[in-house]
Amino acid sequence: MIVGTEWLVEAEGCSPASLRDEALMRRLFDQVIADLGLKALDSVWHKFPGEGGVTGLVALTESHLACHTYPEHGTATFNLYCCRTRPAWDWETNLKTVLAASSVKITIVTRGEGSSQSKIQNPKSKMAGGDA
Amino acid sequence: MIVGTEWLVEAEGCSPASLRDEALMRRLFDQVIADLGLKALDSVWHKFPGEGGVTGLVALTESHLACHTYPEHGTATFNLYCCRTRPAWDWETNLKTVLAASSVKITIVTRGEGSSQSKIQNPKSKMAGGDA
Repeated sequence: MIVGTEWLVEAEGCSPASLRDEALMRRLFDQVIADLGLKALDSVWHKFPGEGGVTGLVALTESHLACHTYPEHGTATFNLYCCRTRPAWDWETNLKTVLAASSVKITIVTRGEGSSQSKIQNPKSKMAGGDA
Repeated sequence: MIVGTEWLVEAEGCSPASLRDEALMRRLFDQVIADLGLKALDSVWHKFPGEGGVTGLVALTESHLACHTYPEHGTATFNLYCCRTRPAWDWETNLKTVLAASSVKITIVTRGEGSSQSKIQNPKSKMAGGDA
């Protein structure tokens, strides 16, 4: 039984300062949630000390949204798991704008029985390396 | 830059009562965390009303652990994202024991740049249909 769709998003070449900015990451999540008409139930946020990154987890009526940032590598990863059909969010444009990402890669995984095939969208962005 | 490993786990044929039991799901998470030597920072749990399932999200020092259960389909899905190397947890045996799952499928995704290839472990369990 297919029970949901999960987007796994990897953003590289991001501004390290943005990846340490919990308030910025919270606003980014608010934007995803508003744009897709999702409903947040509760959340956990953690800023690792000093030069460390940010972890955010939001439980949604529709499943969850998560991020982990690695300022030391300029990398952020996101998971958006929706148990109800939602349009795709424009991760590439938004993460290039908000985090100054140089490339954004998206893998879509169908959750549930016998269906966990993944495919990669935007393969060109993997190789673009800075055409924001 | 590879920043972590994520296990996507789908369990089918589970006991619907177990999938509505938040306390059971919390104990299952406690077991994963203890067995793998992970450190929980904070968590969100939500039991959907009536016949609904359970959502659990735990922020870890090492990233996160999440579950969503669908009692109406006998299905539970899990995400375990670790930014540090960890041994594999025996999802198959444990979910067959704790949730009475008839099959457990695991997909491993490497998180970070250019590395989001996935592979499926335990392909036979997809077809086993109840040989716990």
